[in-house]
Amino acid sequence: MALGGSLAPELLAQNAERTNQKARIAFIGVGLRGRNHVQNTFDFPFAEITAICDIDPSAVAITQKMLRDAGKKEAAVYGKTPRDYENMLLRDDIDGVVIATPWEWHVPMAVATMKAGKYAGVEVSATVTLQESWDLVNTFEKTGSHCMILENVCYRRDVMAVLNMVRKNLFGELTHLQCGYQHDLRFVKFNDGKQPYGGGVEFGEKGFSEAKWRTQHSIDRNGDLYPTHGLGPVAEMININRGNQFLYLTSMASKGLGLHNYIVEKGGKDHPNAKVKFKLGDIVQTMIKCANGETILITHDTNSPRPYSLGFRVQGDQGLWMDDGNQIYVDKKSPHDRWEADKAYMDAYDHPFWQKDGALAAGAGHGGMDYFVLRDFLTAVQTKTAPPIDVYDAAAWSAISPISEMSIARGSEPVAIPDFTRGKWKTRKPVFGL
Amino acid sequence: MALGGSLAPELLAQNAERTNQKARIAFIGVGLRGRNHVQNTFDFPFAEITAICDIDPSAVAITQKMLRDAGKKEAAVYGKTPRDYENMLLRDDIDGVVIATPWEWHVPMAVATMKAGKYAGVEVSATVTLQESWDLVNTFEKTGSHCMILENVCYRRDVMAVLNMVRKNLFGELTHLQCGYQHDLRFVKFNDGKQPYGGGVEFGEKGFSEAKWRTQHSIDRNGDLYPTHGLGPVAEMININRGNQFLYLTSMASKGLGLHNYIVEKGGKDHPNAKVKFKLGDIVQTMIKCANGETILITHDTNSPRPYSLGFRVQGDQGLWMDDGNQIYVDKKSPHDRWEADKAYMDAYDHPFWQKDGALAAGAGHGGMDYFVLRDFLTAVQTKTAPPIDVYDAAAWSAISPISEMSIARGSEPVAIPDFTRGKWKTRKPVFGL
Repeated sequence: MALGGSLAPELLAQNAERTNQKARIAFIGVGLRGRNHVQNTFDFPFAEITAICDIDPSAVAITQKMLRDAGKKEAAVYGKTPRDYENMLLRDDIDGVVIATPWEWHVPMAVATMKAGKYAGVEVSATVTLQESWDLVNTFEKTGSHCMILENVCYRRDVMAVLNMVRKNLFGELTHLQCGYQHDLRFVKFNDGKQPYGGGVEFGEKGFSEAKWRTQHSIDRNGDLYPTHGLGPVAEMININRGNQFLYLTSMASKGLGLHNYIVEKGGKDHPNAKVKFKLGDIVQTMIKCANGETILITHDTNSPRPYSLGFRVQGDQGLWMDDGNQIYVDKKSPHDRWEADKAYMDAYDHPFWQKDGALAAGAGHGGMDYFVLRDFLTAVQTKTAPPIDVYDAAAWSAISPISEMSIARGSEPVAIPDFTRGKWKTRKPVFGL
Repeated sequence: MALGGSLAPELLAQNAERTNQKARIAFIGVGLRGRNHVQNTFDFPFAEITAICDIDPSAVAITQKMLRDAGKKEAAVYGKTPRDYENMLLRDDIDGVVIATPWEWHVPMAVATMKAGKYAGVEVSATVTLQESWDLVNTFEKTGSHCMILENVCYRRDVMAVLNMVRKNLFGELTHLQCGYQHDLRFVKFNDGKQPYGGGVEFGEKGFSEAKWRTQHSIDRNGDLYPTHGLGPVAEMININRGNQFLYLTSMASKGLGLHNYIVEKGGKDHPNAKVKFKLGDIVQTMIKCANGETILITHDTNSPRPYSLGFRVQGDQGLWMDDGNQIYVDKKSPHDRWEADKAYMDAYDHPFWQKDGALAAGAGHGGMDYFVLRDFLTAVQTKTAPPIDVYDAAAWSAISPISEMSIARGSEPVAIPDFTRGKWKTRKPVFGL
């Protein structure tokens, strides 16, 4: 069956004549994140931007100026109403759509994109609810249109080097992995309504950029709200959806102090937002059991003052790597019972992607990883092939959020993680980074 | 009610005349660990060793030589049968007993000790089963005889400095703690039957020292078999049993590869022990929810090649410390978003115990912490007062093992942690390190 690995035959045939043509890309959402991708698209001569959609006229204007400044044609513009993207999707000069909008819009937009016969490239997390994860999968299986979750951290240079180490068996058989999103987002969740980072304690209607929509999730939900930056990379290392599968998880949340404290500290105890109750615990941890016996620990820590860390740990029966402290230990190679700095290993196992195109990537966002994630999406669009990170990954990785919410709501009960591949994980083969 | 905090009045009266006398100490178990304590006892002029019990004549002989070499009287000797300690406990020249025997003997011996009206100082973990934790508590409450778990890591210099930081509010209100026992014990679980560390793949009857008894637990049990080195210190930081309480936990175990691999690697695939099935997963993680809203993550990792680490993390709404990498971050003190080396903080917050007696302690085992744990036990014995780490701590910290086993056996179901204080935690006050 072709669905798991490549475009449905009828669509392949229909699109064959386009294979050597440009990848014609549209954007839904050209805020800060969307414009990162717009800028990076200029790096790929085989891609062109034909249309953009945003309800914020200033975002559209800035994007058009970026296009002009880059010597490109202005894009067709949509966004008069929140659902104007549906009109954009009627165009026949779009092959793929990058979706960089608030989380709750990802699935409606990705589903509409796939139904229009176009590739969907959707920002992280892809889905908010379990049903939405199924909606993505079902739409792909019905339409044959691909959906890639644009998880840039899968392409981080050290993460890809470690993937290389894993594949070359440096750590032996993997037993345990850790990851997370540990990032003090208080200055993202609150701002002054004029600029994106800090300067005030407003959110929602009075906030700007992510504070406009993201903060509400901390009021309504207690769970791992943002698992994919950590989970995507480790899922690739243990071949989730391609020979392995998430089975179940259990989650636990600490009390939540950080967001309220921040409002009181920056806005005073009489600021109206000091009355807001946040459901999200400051630290949320999730343990996942996998079909091949590995365990994964994910930490979500976004409300407390702390240095940024995705907290990776990749451990097998022959050694382990830890992101914090950049430490590695390999049985019989490392001095007994002593960590080594990971630098020499990172150099020796540098992934071919980075060896070849590291210099090109360096100019793109987030230390170069944005270059590779966009390249893989645009290449899939242009060549009409399956993206290396696909709809099943988008569904499974993102589903950790609602499932962790369920577990916490039930006093840390274990909750089964659906097999979104409906058994195809047993025969699907790894493709990422190969 | 006196039971929670000090000796029962009738025993206090009975022992009053001894208050200025020496603490007369007996030992059950003078193997490697017991003899560490024997040696350290020599540091305390107010203590004397009156009797020792061990079924291994060579351990007894070495101990007697230690006594002679230190210019002390030889001790009365017991150990002709496994229950000969009961005869020793009939002596009236024993005030306290240090118990350093295989885990499964801790509770029978501690209970007998308490019933004989003597202080029990029991090595870690104190108990193997949940019923044993209750046995310790019930015996204490019935007899008024104290039981201290000799958890030396509570006294580690950096751990006590961090306790000091916590009490001085450096991290604000604590939300999340991590700890564990991450120690490649393969060379302890297996040896050549002649010396304690490595050199072969024997255990049980053919093993020596800990391999004789400890390894069997990895065959029979899947859970966190050794939680107290990590959990004791963090329990003190959040006042467990003294204003706070463990509520429930959930545990998850990875597959287990390390022990079998080690046997095959060192002993060959045809060694009879290559057929042994080990139930213990290589990595076992346990999440605990506390009454005051904190979460604790404990990691048990003893079967894989890796550097030693107890993996502490102590986090509050104003900052956090991490053992791995010796890193600290304090809101408004540390450079924004950057870890600091913890050295300057460790110096500034050095605990008064260490400031005063650090030089004395340095000669004792395990970097000095063995000095302080023994000192606190011997002092409690000599002064007839409650030890700072008591029977409720022994019961609750050790109970994590059987409860984690239950959770794993039930597919990571959350399992309630009993309140061994039966409500007294609400009014008991912190005493450790004060």
